[in-house]
Amino acid sequence: MTTTHSAHSAETPAPDPAAGAAVKAADRAHVFHSWSAQGLIDPLPIAGGEGSYFWDYEGNRYLDFASQLVNTNIGHQHPKVVAAIQEQAGRMCTMAPGFAVDVRAEAARLIAERTPGDLDKIFFTNGGAEAVEHAVRMARVHTGRPKILSTYRSYHGATGAAINITGDARRWPSDNGTAGVVHFFGPHAYRSHFYAETEEQECERALAHLEETIAFEGPQTVAAVVLETVVGTAGILVPPPGYLAGVREICDRHGIVFVLDEVMAGFGRTGAWFAADHFDVVPDLITFAKGVNSGYVPLGGVAISGAVAATFDQRPYPGGLTYSGHPLACASAVATINAMAEEGIVEHAAHIGENVIGPALREIAERHPSVGEVRGMGVFWALDLVKDRATREPLVPYNASGAANAPMAAFAAACKRGGVWPFVNMNRTHVVPPCTVTEAEAKEGLAVLDAALNEADAHTVDAAGAATDAARG
Amino acid sequence: MTTTHSAHSAETPAPDPAAGAAVKAADRAHVFHSWSAQGLIDPLPIAGGEGSYFWDYEGNRYLDFASQLVNTNIGHQHPKVVAAIQEQAGRMCTMAPGFAVDVRAEAARLIAERTPGDLDKIFFTNGGAEAVEHAVRMARVHTGRPKILSTYRSYHGATGAAINITGDARRWPSDNGTAGVVHFFGPHAYRSHFYAETEEQECERALAHLEETIAFEGPQTVAAVVLETVVGTAGILVPPPGYLAGVREICDRHGIVFVLDEVMAGFGRTGAWFAADHFDVVPDLITFAKGVNSGYVPLGGVAISGAVAATFDQRPYPGGLTYSGHPLACASAVATINAMAEEGIVEHAAHIGENVIGPALREIAERHPSVGEVRGMGVFWALDLVKDRATREPLVPYNASGAANAPMAAFAAACKRGGVWPFVNMNRTHVVPPCTVTEAEAKEGLAVLDAALNEADAHTVDAAGAATDAARG
Repeated sequence: MTTTHSAHSAETPAPDPAAGAAVKAADRAHVFHSWSAQGLIDPLPIAGGEGSYFWDYEGNRYLDFASQLVNTNIGHQHPKVVAAIQEQAGRMCTMAPGFAVDVRAEAARLIAERTPGDLDKIFFTNGGAEAVEHAVRMARVHTGRPKILSTYRSYHGATGAAINITGDARRWPSDNGTAGVVHFFGPHAYRSHFYAETEEQECERALAHLEETIAFEGPQTVAAVVLETVVGTAGILVPPPGYLAGVREICDRHGIVFVLDEVMAGFGRTGAWFAADHFDVVPDLITFAKGVNSGYVPLGGVAISGAVAATFDQRPYPGGLTYSGHPLACASAVATINAMAEEGIVEHAAHIGENVIGPALREIAERHPSVGEVRGMGVFWALDLVKDRATREPLVPYNASGAANAPMAAFAAACKRGGVWPFVNMNRTHVVPPCTVTEAEAKEGLAVLDAALNEADAHTVDAAGAATDAARG
Repeated sequence: MTTTHSAHSAETPAPDPAAGAAVKAADRAHVFHSWSAQGLIDPLPIAGGEGSYFWDYEGNRYLDFASQLVNTNIGHQHPKVVAAIQEQAGRMCTMAPGFAVDVRAEAARLIAERTPGDLDKIFFTNGGAEAVEHAVRMARVHTGRPKILSTYRSYHGATGAAINITGDARRWPSDNGTAGVVHFFGPHAYRSHFYAETEEQECERALAHLEETIAFEGPQTVAAVVLETVVGTAGILVPPPGYLAGVREICDRHGIVFVLDEVMAGFGRTGAWFAADHFDVVPDLITFAKGVNSGYVPLGGVAISGAVAATFDQRPYPGGLTYSGHPLACASAVATINAMAEEGIVEHAAHIGENVIGPALREIAERHPSVGEVRGMGVFWALDLVKDRATREPLVPYNASGAANAPMAAFAAACKRGGVWPFVNMNRTHVVPPCTVTEAEAKEGLAVLDAALNEADAHTVDAAGAATDAARG
């Protein structure tokens, strides 16, 4: 990168525990939190952030190895994006979606310029869930077919259609079972559903599984296949070579719309503008959010191919929202994309993944019996933690909570004590710092992770042997 | 109001048609618009706005009688809100929903302080559709029941569940018919579904209709009744006295969650903080968006009663989103609510509705045979336009487009030529300026509307008599 804004340049403000206590009390009085039992949570009051760090009111700084919820690809408070928001706020905060607005058009152009193929029309939403909602609607109207196929290991958002398409446990309380969604299994060589012994075999069998699922559902009933290009929260699952091209071919053969959900994988996360670039595949629709403007202002959207857009050329697209193409959000996207381009942030993410994070994680894995697999690319990595490397039994059961989840909770607590804010989901920790993370910061965080993994090791079947291994390592 | 910021204080910038043409060209190249046939629209490039006005690049200023999409309750570019966004952008743009953040807690407090009853927990979303999605989920999990009842004349958003609950034509292309939604008829005395001859009778029969619908659906299957407190886009339908209290009583009797959707009606639009205040009714959940921060940053949410919140005290609420309680959005809500309170904007909206807009519209109605009914309150008014006052036949058919909609298109064009940007939906025009609209601005706009109604009059059965009426008026 040509600039170093993500390095710690400002002093962390002096601790102010009384202010923090007041913020927490105010929060507990009135704020209802996402995905939480409201009486069992203890939200940490946060005073500020900059670059790869954020801090609380007690004087603790955390290296943000989660990029919040994997959205601050450009780090906290990037000065160019902050300045653009301030300037746009003074010019025009909001304007209805029916008008033409300079920053709305420029954001669309900058995104379209980066999407693969002819995905050159951009429909803006407020976030990723809405992006998926609209992609699904476009696919259904375009094809005139009802069903959406998606994988069991996936997350696509929490609104009506998006949560039905989602393939993790968060779907269960909201799935009415009747929304025309069919779940299938994607490739995941480490935990193969297909008894595959090689990645090549996994790819081949996963494609055959999809093909057979479509055959039995009836191809003429299937509007879309929706996949995360690289599966995010459900495990950083990088598709094997040939898989996405195979899905593209199946979709083409059956007239099915191919949707790639890049809400988490897009805008630098994998070391490319879009993860699809790594696999040389062009879908019909791409959904995006998060990294498009690092979430500085809520924004998401759908990039639309010429063929799908043509369906809505003479016939109204039956969807919309008050804040589609919100000027303040679009201005922040323009500044974010330009800053990422100017500062080589996407290339930096690729570099740091290939030369720093990847090698370090593989080295760490050797020392820790709890690490079953290391996988990822760019600043998008997972450690799949296991009780037993031989059986690959997850360190904690699927969707565990409370005592059953204690090993992961202990690992997370150790990271935080060490000054690293980890991303933890089920039996995995994801290493997902900002794309702007420096080599020094990455190494600092990986060292903390390394030490914290001792907590996980203590719960493995060969816990006794771990000390010996570490001594040998 | 103690300040006059909404009056025109800045000069409209000099016209720059070339810049406008460039914006339009850029828009047409890459922006995919809401609810539109992309090849048939001609989006007007907008250069800026202030207070009750916005302007294009040709030197045309428009009095915003639509508040964009009925969201800029505080007008364009309110200086206090702009300053708050700029300041917050410099402090903290984004922070994950799991943390406690000062402005998030303060926005929640200011909203909770204004909600009726004990709706004191606030779950934040990015907009109104998502607010409805989460309210529906809360109701279903809280009751353990599947069905949602909503009215045919309603709009609740365009995501999966929200669009199924919606009761206007925008639902049709997206309704899978299986989402557990049942539509019933709300009260609408002017076009009574119940053959009622008085408002009292309409209320009584509408309640009996709901009661019987619930009886046949099975009360034990009904999670929620969702109503717009004052129905917005579907016609500014003010419920008759006693209706909402009657629905409350029915819900209580059957253990059904009562949701009031105040996305459009809330935050001053009706001349009260919440429209529910006019009807002395306390629902279990209120959804909000738009006016909470005038849409300066995308924001919405759900205000939750103690009883519903208690369901999620020891058990996780199964929903969430990356930008829940977004700091930049919450800071703009804090500034908006404080400015509205300091400047008496809600009281002003009530005053202008009662003393200026309401009387003027009733006077206008007398002069124009196309006006079938005037209804509304605050800055939330509709003219129901008809071909024939005797039969009440709408001026254009339900969901008309193209030639069939020509009379409404001609009316809208006349408003724009006169410098007023109107809100037009089917056979209605809604008079929905910002809550900050001054008396002089309101009168200016109403005069333009008055003249433009001649276009509508020309399509009435008594077009020939209209000139005589006007001369007499």
